[in-house]
Amino acid sequence: MKELTIQETAEMLQKLEDVHILIHRTPDGDCIGSGYSLQAVFRQLGIRSKVLCDDPIPKRFHFLLPEEPEEDFEPKYVVSVDLAEEALFGSLKEIYGGRVNLCIDHHISNQKYSEYLMCEPDASSACEVLYKIYRVMGIRFTEQIAKCLYTGIATDTGCFKYSCATPEAHIFTAEMMREFPHIRYDLINREMFTVKSRAQLQVEIEMFRNMEFYFNGKVTLVWAMLDICEKNGITIGEMEGLTTLSTQPEGVQVGITVREPKRGFYKISMRSTDSVNVAEICQKLGGGGHVKAAGCTISGTTDEIRQTLLKAVESAI
Amino acid sequence: MKELTIQETAEMLQKLEDVHILIHRTPDGDCIGSGYSLQAVFRQLGIRSKVLCDDPIPKRFHFLLPEEPEEDFEPKYVVSVDLAEEALFGSLKEIYGGRVNLCIDHHISNQKYSEYLMCEPDASSACEVLYKIYRVMGIRFTEQIAKCLYTGIATDTGCFKYSCATPEAHIFTAEMMREFPHIRYDLINREMFTVKSRAQLQVEIEMFRNMEFYFNGKVTLVWAMLDICEKNGITIGEMEGLTTLSTQPEGVQVGITVREPKRGFYKISMRSTDSVNVAEICQKLGGGGHVKAAGCTISGTTDEIRQTLLKAVESAI
Repeated sequence: MKELTIQETAEMLQKLEDVHILIHRTPDGDCIGSGYSLQAVFRQLGIRSKVLCDDPIPKRFHFLLPEEPEEDFEPKYVVSVDLAEEALFGSLKEIYGGRVNLCIDHHISNQKYSEYLMCEPDASSACEVLYKIYRVMGIRFTEQIAKCLYTGIATDTGCFKYSCATPEAHIFTAEMMREFPHIRYDLINREMFTVKSRAQLQVEIEMFRNMEFYFNGKVTLVWAMLDICEKNGITIGEMEGLTTLSTQPEGVQVGITVREPKRGFYKISMRSTDSVNVAEICQKLGGGGHVKAAGCTISGTTDEIRQTLLKAVESAI
Repeated sequence: MKELTIQETAEMLQKLEDVHILIHRTPDGDCIGSGYSLQAVFRQLGIRSKVLCDDPIPKRFHFLLPEEPEEDFEPKYVVSVDLAEEALFGSLKEIYGGRVNLCIDHHISNQKYSEYLMCEPDASSACEVLYKIYRVMGIRFTEQIAKCLYTGIATDTGCFKYSCATPEAHIFTAEMMREFPHIRYDLINREMFTVKSRAQLQVEIEMFRNMEFYFNGKVTLVWAMLDICEKNGITIGEMEGLTTLSTQPEGVQVGITVREPKRGFYKISMRSTDSVNVAEICQKLGGGGHVKAAGCTISGTTDEIRQTLLKAVESAI
């Protein structure tokens, strides 16, 4: 594995051909914005590319997809974006495991699985890293590229709410806004951070009412169970933005959200509101992520999950 | 009334003496940040000043207050900030009505009640206007001033979520972040936008469950009634950030929140998610505000209120 600079990455991207772009499973605004902005950039350079994801792209991100249909072709190169480890390829790991030529990322937990790596752990988002690369490449920004990058930066910073909302993130955003004043950033944000279907609101209300508090309210546990979702006619995949519920109560240091995408199989999201390093906690449980936002997967009964999680968190608070 | 430029306002502020600074009743992050940043600036210039508000400053804003006790004195000048009309003085109108020398504001609905006016309707917040004025004045920014201005910009833009989050708002924020990298902006945001007491969460859950939908879900009505608050041991004043609930359901164009601070007396907040001009609607009801966020007060029974509001909104959607 060789680490690249922004400059070197910019040069390498220009030389690629027939690229498959991988983004992580359970795709979010940052990996989707990264993947599709990169595809738009490749198109500008006359390079054929295709974005691949193990899960479908949620509807609310469809405005970032290109209008042109995507071609099928055998890749000569594989680039992964916002993808810290091969486990997050999902089932695509069978095809692409060990085959990634270049990874562009911002996770401090990046597992260095690619031939070349451009990783900036101080960047707010993979989209921020790509913004810098595109500027060096002299790419002509289009409305689609700007929408992709804005969405990535906005979603990964919680709309500039978190500590990863750096001055650079604000400045790049201002630059894009000046270049594309007619994009309705407010509507993108509404879609990303505010809007919920009535079914989703219904489920959230139930989750709020069943929220569990531990260690004098320093830790919360929110259960997003299959049963509640099914009862309200909604899939767990549609319950985006759930992780923010767990940190709302006053005094919470670690908010834990347990999602049950398949019966008996649990995806854990941990959020730290201040000084607790949840990446460390999740790494011990076989996961990873950022200092303030991390995750892992566990299986077992809900009682076992609860015990495992509380034990893992206890020493950190 | 004479309108001033940024430059003229900067010059005028330097010449004042013994200033009473007025901010609006039901104070929010922008008027509090404006008032107390201005007080800090006056202190730097050796000018005595005092911030006055008809309501107490909510606890979560106390970190913006100066450490030094405030002196009582008879004002030679009165400056109002973020204050569109004298009705928002509350009971202070008796003393200061018709006596404001300079108003610094960003409301398009400003009633031009002051001797001199510096109003920039395109600015995200009064704090953004003040930021520009302070830069022209050559003020030495301190951590307290930066915290005040950041809080004002962040709260009025919904943490950079709304259309009033201009490129300038992002750039000024980046400049302050670079100058004061150690301020925990993320914790300010957590306090402003995320944290809720358990009582508050309880009340919100009830409000969500009782949310009313009209005109095919284009209009929502959320009731923040005294009874629900009292039942949960919380005052209506502590129920900040309520207005965001009404616009969460998919398809909402106008979200209306009705607060009942005193029995039978209602404060209405209207939020537009897209093209409806709620300032116009609220003006018809004797209120005012911004195109996308406005308010008014009504009295009557809840049935009367509902009819009045729905009738006022109907023609706009």
